[in-house]
Amino acid sequence: MTPQERVRAAFAQLALSERPEAWITLRDLPSVLAEAVALEARLAAGELLPLAGKLLAVKDNVDVAGLPTTAGCPTYAYHPEASAPAVQRLVDAGAIVLGKTNLDQFATGLVGTRSPYGAVRDVRDPSLVSGGSSSGSAVVVALGIADLAIGTDTAGSGRVPAAFQQIVGVKPTYGLVPTAGVVPACRSFDCVTIFARTLSEGRRAIRIMSDPVLPADAPLAAPPRPVVAVPATLTGLSDSYAEAFEQAVKSLEAAGVVVRAIRLEPFLAAAKLLYEGGFVAERYAAVGPFVDGGPDGIDPTVGAIIRKARDVPAHVLVSDSECLAELRREAMAGWGDADALLLPTAPFQPTIAAVTADPIGVNARLGTYTNFCNLFGLSAVAVPAPGIGVQVVARGFADAVAADIAALIVGETPAPVSSGLPLLVVG
Amino acid sequence: MTPQERVRAAFAQLALSERPEAWITLRDLPSVLAEAVALEARLAAGELLPLAGKLLAVKDNVDVAGLPTTAGCPTYAYHPEASAPAVQRLVDAGAIVLGKTNLDQFATGLVGTRSPYGAVRDVRDPSLVSGGSSSGSAVVVALGIADLAIGTDTAGSGRVPAAFQQIVGVKPTYGLVPTAGVVPACRSFDCVTIFARTLSEGRRAIRIMSDPVLPADAPLAAPPRPVVAVPATLTGLSDSYAEAFEQAVKSLEAAGVVVRAIRLEPFLAAAKLLYEGGFVAERYAAVGPFVDGGPDGIDPTVGAIIRKARDVPAHVLVSDSECLAELRREAMAGWGDADALLLPTAPFQPTIAAVTADPIGVNARLGTYTNFCNLFGLSAVAVPAPGIGVQVVARGFADAVAADIAALIVGETPAPVSSGLPLLVVG
Repeated sequence: MTPQERVRAAFAQLALSERPEAWITLRDLPSVLAEAVALEARLAAGELLPLAGKLLAVKDNVDVAGLPTTAGCPTYAYHPEASAPAVQRLVDAGAIVLGKTNLDQFATGLVGTRSPYGAVRDVRDPSLVSGGSSSGSAVVVALGIADLAIGTDTAGSGRVPAAFQQIVGVKPTYGLVPTAGVVPACRSFDCVTIFARTLSEGRRAIRIMSDPVLPADAPLAAPPRPVVAVPATLTGLSDSYAEAFEQAVKSLEAAGVVVRAIRLEPFLAAAKLLYEGGFVAERYAAVGPFVDGGPDGIDPTVGAIIRKARDVPAHVLVSDSECLAELRREAMAGWGDADALLLPTAPFQPTIAAVTADPIGVNARLGTYTNFCNLFGLSAVAVPAPGIGVQVVARGFADAVAADIAALIVGETPAPVSSGLPLLVVG
Repeated sequence: MTPQERVRAAFAQLALSERPEAWITLRDLPSVLAEAVALEARLAAGELLPLAGKLLAVKDNVDVAGLPTTAGCPTYAYHPEASAPAVQRLVDAGAIVLGKTNLDQFATGLVGTRSPYGAVRDVRDPSLVSGGSSSGSAVVVALGIADLAIGTDTAGSGRVPAAFQQIVGVKPTYGLVPTAGVVPACRSFDCVTIFARTLSEGRRAIRIMSDPVLPADAPLAAPPRPVVAVPATLTGLSDSYAEAFEQAVKSLEAAGVVVRAIRLEPFLAAAKLLYEGGFVAERYAAVGPFVDGGPDGIDPTVGAIIRKARDVPAHVLVSDSECLAELRREAMAGWGDADALLLPTAPFQPTIAAVTADPIGVNARLGTYTNFCNLFGLSAVAVPAPGIGVQVVARGFADAVAADIAALIVGETPAPVSSGLPLLVVG
């Protein structure tokens, strides 16, 4: 399919999709087509463009030159002069931006409903949430409109919607993809992520977006017979998810992985710190003074969370940081020499009605298995498994290990690596 | 002098010294002598003990097994099971602990007067402050009682008293000397330091105390013709200090150093963040709940500072951290490729009466030139120059550069380094 054909197919799909709430700013067909034409000319001239004609959607807390950035709040909108480096690197590789996608306002939420641009609905069942905060990005990839979509992930925003929309969500190690040009949520933990329909496409995009900062000892592939830790006990899972997760573990064992049970408690304890502790003050530092001004268009739940964060004392943030370091030591001691940790991405997928009835409580429970990841500086890849979304979590800068093990789940051959390390071959 | 002779000389000096307030816990002559005897036996047996018979005083916020740790507050006292690694490494090298020294309570102060164990007086003029917070440590080294003394330095506590007592204070890069077994002041910035009468003794002690964590590219010596930055303008200096500092710069030029003027403003702006911003919350996190309990023996000024720190909002700490990162970029851009920065250690030496009259204001002004150092992750060596104490500040892990340049000021030959790098020879 040529870039022009891809663009026309996307707009045809868009017209059928019945999820207009996924977009905040959508470019028009003629200007997107014009870019496809220009791209074809560059390809004809022999330029190497690894993402030529791939259509990109960008979460609306990430800058794209020429389009407003709203972060899900119309009165917050500004017009960035330049695209975020994460976006620009994909565009430089031949991707074409379709538009900016809806999100839980200020990336505060895991549901996809906290937006004055509308609650984003699941692609299959409109009574269910899409997941968030990168709601629109996940939905437009799942619908086949975009090939790639940029998300962000502080507490799980790049993984939970991937799970619900049954696509791939790659959350690189903190610091690997630059966050310049991104509206901060919790600046110490924010990561730029990618949604894709295949793992290999997601990995390729992340490689293109990444800074060359890998430590010398970063593993470039999973070992031939990886050891994967799984929680000894799982809490809060719906019955169908509990059963599906058990099946996912068995499939992984069948694929040659050694499974080992570990205590998840220190991971879960850290997860609570992200929302119930001092770190939420970073959200106030980012957008609190704007929210305090009482502008129109503030989502009531998001506004309440951010205003409450103003009153967190600094000594709580200090002691939470110390507590986090201690929990991390304990958690990683339990992790031991395992190559990765397999977890449900989210414990259940709620209805929009359930979230409306209890907007804070349902959201908090959704982050049970994702919240700790950036607090501990880990990498993760969320992939669909039969009946559930699962995530493979690996150490910081062991992103390739997470992706290789995730490839065993989705049945993709791992992308070749450029080193002389042995490749993991899927039988 | 044998270890036994050294111990007897120290106790004789102690009896003459008239600065009993320098000590919080002093060991008795028989038990210290017994250690000297044991040490002599080990030496006679051929053991290599580079610090054999050196007498060590330890600031009373650093643990020594067998002695209480008070942090300058009698009701805070606890009895540590083990010595801090920084102490133990010196003892393992043959140093003998004489006792624990007075300090500004909880290491909160640069004056030496904030202690229920008494205001520590300058060794020459008892109307002047000793400087703090490592007041007793500096005084007992200046008096010749101890050869080495351990201090701590968050805002200048290991350098200001060195300046006033006209001795050497070595403040290593944050993270080089372990802070286990130290009562935290601001945990993110606390460093363990050494006082000595000669630079070579101070350097040797720091080397013994340090973890082997030097980055591969850490310089092991100053270049043959170092470039030293000095402030284009200096504020707050007493007249005699201003004149003496100018002389110190001239002497350094005469010793072959290239002097270059830079803007000090971004350094000074960062300095203000340490006391006037959010970081003070770390002091509350460390000892606030204890102070809130209303125990006896809290210094009124220290108590007020710590109680006030309870109310700092977390978002201020977050935005101060971001502001600090920005100031650091600006400051280091101005620093450029200079090898070090030469500064007055303190702007003036106040009387005890002046501090009593304005305990907060005078103390804050004393930290003008020392506060920024740990905020920026720098190393520093404070040395006496005629009429003033000066400090040579170098980049993080460039401790050897600071010490080599400081050696030019005090006229000591630099200690030999173990690498093949060229040595700086002082003519």
